[in-house]
Amino acid sequence: MPEDAVISYVKANQERNLQQLFDLLRIPSVSAQPAKHGKDVERCATFVADSLRDAGMENVRLVQTPGNPIVYADWLHAGEGAPTVLVYGHYDVQPPEPLDLWTSPPFEPTIRDGKLYARGATDDKGQMFAHVKAVEAHLKTHGKLPVNVKFFIEGEEEVGSKNLDRAIEELRKELACDVVLVSDTAMKGEGQPAITYSLRGLIYFQVDVTGPSSDLHSGTWGGSLANPNEALVQALAKMKDPKTGKVKIPGFYDGIKVTKEDRAAVAKSGYPDSYYKKSMAIKALWGEKGWSAAERTSIRPTFEVNGIYGGYQGDGAKTVIPAHAHAKVSMRLVGGQNPEKITRSFEKYLKSVALPGVEVKVTRLSAGFGAKVPLDHPAMQAATKALSDTFGKKPVYLAEGGSIPVVATFQKLLGVNTILMGFGLHDENLHAPDEHIRVANYQRGIEASARFLHEVAKVPL
Amino acid sequence: MPEDAVISYVKANQERNLQQLFDLLRIPSVSAQPAKHGKDVERCATFVADSLRDAGMENVRLVQTPGNPIVYADWLHAGEGAPTVLVYGHYDVQPPEPLDLWTSPPFEPTIRDGKLYARGATDDKGQMFAHVKAVEAHLKTHGKLPVNVKFFIEGEEEVGSKNLDRAIEELRKELACDVVLVSDTAMKGEGQPAITYSLRGLIYFQVDVTGPSSDLHSGTWGGSLANPNEALVQALAKMKDPKTGKVKIPGFYDGIKVTKEDRAAVAKSGYPDSYYKKSMAIKALWGEKGWSAAERTSIRPTFEVNGIYGGYQGDGAKTVIPAHAHAKVSMRLVGGQNPEKITRSFEKYLKSVALPGVEVKVTRLSAGFGAKVPLDHPAMQAATKALSDTFGKKPVYLAEGGSIPVVATFQKLLGVNTILMGFGLHDENLHAPDEHIRVANYQRGIEASARFLHEVAKVPL
Repeated sequence: MPEDAVISYVKANQERNLQQLFDLLRIPSVSAQPAKHGKDVERCATFVADSLRDAGMENVRLVQTPGNPIVYADWLHAGEGAPTVLVYGHYDVQPPEPLDLWTSPPFEPTIRDGKLYARGATDDKGQMFAHVKAVEAHLKTHGKLPVNVKFFIEGEEEVGSKNLDRAIEELRKELACDVVLVSDTAMKGEGQPAITYSLRGLIYFQVDVTGPSSDLHSGTWGGSLANPNEALVQALAKMKDPKTGKVKIPGFYDGIKVTKEDRAAVAKSGYPDSYYKKSMAIKALWGEKGWSAAERTSIRPTFEVNGIYGGYQGDGAKTVIPAHAHAKVSMRLVGGQNPEKITRSFEKYLKSVALPGVEVKVTRLSAGFGAKVPLDHPAMQAATKALSDTFGKKPVYLAEGGSIPVVATFQKLLGVNTILMGFGLHDENLHAPDEHIRVANYQRGIEASARFLHEVAKVPL
Repeated sequence: MPEDAVISYVKANQERNLQQLFDLLRIPSVSAQPAKHGKDVERCATFVADSLRDAGMENVRLVQTPGNPIVYADWLHAGEGAPTVLVYGHYDVQPPEPLDLWTSPPFEPTIRDGKLYARGATDDKGQMFAHVKAVEAHLKTHGKLPVNVKFFIEGEEEVGSKNLDRAIEELRKELACDVVLVSDTAMKGEGQPAITYSLRGLIYFQVDVTGPSSDLHSGTWGGSLANPNEALVQALAKMKDPKTGKVKIPGFYDGIKVTKEDRAAVAKSGYPDSYYKKSMAIKALWGEKGWSAAERTSIRPTFEVNGIYGGYQGDGAKTVIPAHAHAKVSMRLVGGQNPEKITRSFEKYLKSVALPGVEVKVTRLSAGFGAKVPLDHPAMQAATKALSDTFGKKPVYLAEGGSIPVVATFQKLLGVNTILMGFGLHDENLHAPDEHIRVANYQRGIEASARFLHEVAKVPL
């Protein structure tokens, strides 16, 4: 089988593939610190481009944006009727601070106990680079790929991908494909591969409540007006029913369709309630009635107050009525929910329940649709086979509570689904000191990606 | 009339009385800055003691406390059956910062447009010293006072009078009296004298809500637990009915007796709702239904969230579920309400409505009873006469929204009422830069105090 030769190539080149990842990890491509690391980010884009060229990919170029460049490459000689796979990933990383909490320096990759420590190791350089090495294995072994492949590797994921949607829209034709392949998620656990098939969307708001023209003495003025702190508290409290945990924003649940299969998938892949209780060290769970914690964190939407602040916060007492009070509010949305509609409804409802005399301002800071890939999608089968063959164990299907907005963008702008084949683990400290990836999972990631390209050629897309 | 001679003495000594107040104001007796001003505080106590001695008072001494000394003096030769008046005030002042906002330096008394500018001018050196000069006028004119008089002038009022209650308790016998006279409040307006007959009590709480063992990612964990921010919001929202503005803490209103006379007094002395709206620059007032803003800020109790904080407060978005959330909560209490009972009820009720899985901790930071002096109290009549004769206008009776805890302490420990005869005005920047007092009101304060001692000798106490 041609596949065996490719896997042999991967295995034979493990040390070299690891050293090249080391080189990639040494570049401090911190997108959140442009003054300090702007040059490094550009250097990193060039490194990725060069790696793709060395792998045998064609039309390699840096797509300029108002921010950091996106690396594009393709190989389109799979022949008539062959499907096209678009690989998305990102080469930028989170800031490494606080530096003193790292066991080894964040940009000096170090292996300890089979784990490769470096900023970006699991998020996302290690996972993204596995695909570069996978196409290389195919191209160096057979001089060709089983399918057409395009790469689209951005450099602003850690700062909100602010130029990505625009770029995808402009390059719509060039990016045309049958399926997107992304590795920027986690496995279920050590040795248990997983495909994330559902992601929650996210809308995030700043809420500002303004009352009197200045801070007031609560003895002199208290009782005569709606205190902005209290107006905020009263309004936010109305957003959720404390008895049922249901969100009370009108129309919030409209359009949601949770199937038996969804619940079965969560029941199979998700953790039991006891796991949540223990992990968070709390005495009792709480949330929307009628759903398990695993469901509530994956296939059900949420409403959360991420921040709240107003008035006096120091030690002791200050008898003040503040002029204003604020909150950060976010909602995780699932497939079917419309962020635009919910945004409007939230703003209207919040204002309608505000106490008299205060002004309520709602500013949306971000919005992203949720996404769901049908479990019976043909590429899902290909990914399942690739992961099963690589790990010796069938993958589980995860409904992820977090959000990867680009998945919804691909669905919307390119009309395609995304296969989220993750090689990270939840304990690998992404966004924290001592970020790492299992070396074995990086190597398996290369194999799984190589197998996926092989398998996906066989299914009807 | 012997009184006329006293008033003549006061008028003849206006310049001297002013210069001596200047000397008192030059001492930076800032109790909140012991490292910088500890010596000044002691110097100020000695200055007050010397002034009392010079005035002709006897048994002058500094009562030592764990903090700053209290100045005691008495004159007890008014004869059998003569009543005793205890004068309370404070010689310490607020910090003067920010210094650059003062037109003239805070400890260099300066007169501009009939106003004497200095830290402590109105709060409380100017008002307190008026009583020293009043007894002096009596003693220098006639060699005696119409009643027995005791002085008790503390040096920690601006830092919470933390050693005062203990001192009063220990000196209970020495402080025995028939009525307390305090000048540390305001007139109704220029030319309009006032007696404050009602003060609100204050209980102040720190509320801490604790949830998971660390901050959590709201995508991964959101929906599975009661977010401490939300638990706080839901619990605090339950403390007040947003429709009626009524506090819902069980038993909160127990013991309150608001009489027709109280409402009539507020109607006469208080401002109309329009004044509140305009002063605070808000579109609508809000509060307990059935009561005017003037009533709600004076003879009705309140519940206020003075501070609230939890989770992310920075720019932009952070998808966090915080490990804990906090609030500062205070209640102004009126006569009849029991702070101890309400404290217990609040804690119990707040905990009972908390969402599952969070812990709620309630810490009381301070507690003081409200106080109310019967409008028909004989000393009230004496004060009314003294103010009418001095200002040529009858005083109004004010129910003050703020708190002067020592008034309740005198009621509780000495069993006596307090006459609050204020010579300040609300616009005199107490606690702020450019604090001042009207020179004319300082002089009238001396006269009114001298007249009060004369009048109070005539009423049955």
